[in-house]
Amino acid sequence: MTTNAPPPRSRTQRRADTLERFRSDVDLWVASADEMGNAYLVPLSFVWEGAALTIATPRSSRTARNLLRAGEARVALGTTRDVVIVEGSVEELPIGADPQLEDAHAAATGFDPRTLTDEYVYLRIAPRTIRAWREANELEGRLLMRDGRWLD
Amino acid sequence: MTTNAPPPRSRTQRRADTLERFRSDVDLWVASADEMGNAYLVPLSFVWEGAALTIATPRSSRTARNLLRAGEARVALGTTRDVVIVEGSVEELPIGADPQLEDAHAAATGFDPRTLTDEYVYLRIAPRTIRAWREANELEGRLLMRDGRWLD
Repeated sequence: MTTNAPPPRSRTQRRADTLERFRSDVDLWVASADEMGNAYLVPLSFVWEGAALTIATPRSSRTARNLLRAGEARVALGTTRDVVIVEGSVEELPIGADPQLEDAHAAATGFDPRTLTDEYVYLRIAPRTIRAWREANELEGRLLMRDGRWLD
Repeated sequence: MTTNAPPPRSRTQRRADTLERFRSDVDLWVASADEMGNAYLVPLSFVWEGAALTIATPRSSRTARNLLRAGEARVALGTTRDVVIVEGSVEELPIGADPQLEDAHAAATGFDPRTLTDEYVYLRIAPRTIRAWREANELEGRLLMRDGRWLD
């Protein structure tokens, strides 16, 4: 909460910056929880193909089990002072169901779950809500997408 | 998961790097969940005083309610390619109970909950488990603290 932060970005600028992160960033933070309310948090690589953030993780991992149970994810991109928070539904994509997306995932993340011994699951997170802010002066106006629609 | 990552750091080096983050970083990522298993994730500022990471957040916030309910936190420092993950118990510190820590918190974070209109709560997260890694080749050996004790 610095007091000498640059002026807050417009919503248009934040949307452009957010889409640039979706296209260029390799990793995001995934929060999840089990049915007992135990929270979990890990960084994972992702690919954005224009409509959803797709991650892949072992089916037996806590993240996969938690997200498949909840059907919902809250993920963060960027840094603590240049945050994009995405909430959205989680859909499982069976291996082999979308070779084009799976190729794009391998290219973006540097690993290919189709070649690994462990059973992996692709999880497609379709943004329903997106918020983006840098410093405290950007908390106002941080909501960029609601109910899956960009504001404005 | 790059293949040209530097050699993995020793445990001693990771511990030193982790403590440096505790002392120098301003923010961390806090994952939490409610009793229905809905996960939440936000960046918050913190201070480290040698034994615990102390954050402050409005008592009515989702993070405060979730952490006070669970009595446990999982937080991350750093970036997705230079991660420190801390799990630990959460203890509430009533405002005014530890003026020295509250002063240190204000100095480290740049805001002072004691001066704000909203009711804030200080939450002290005492590490029980610490893991630190950069690239995939550091996943092995990432456990640095178990049951509150540094390994080695």
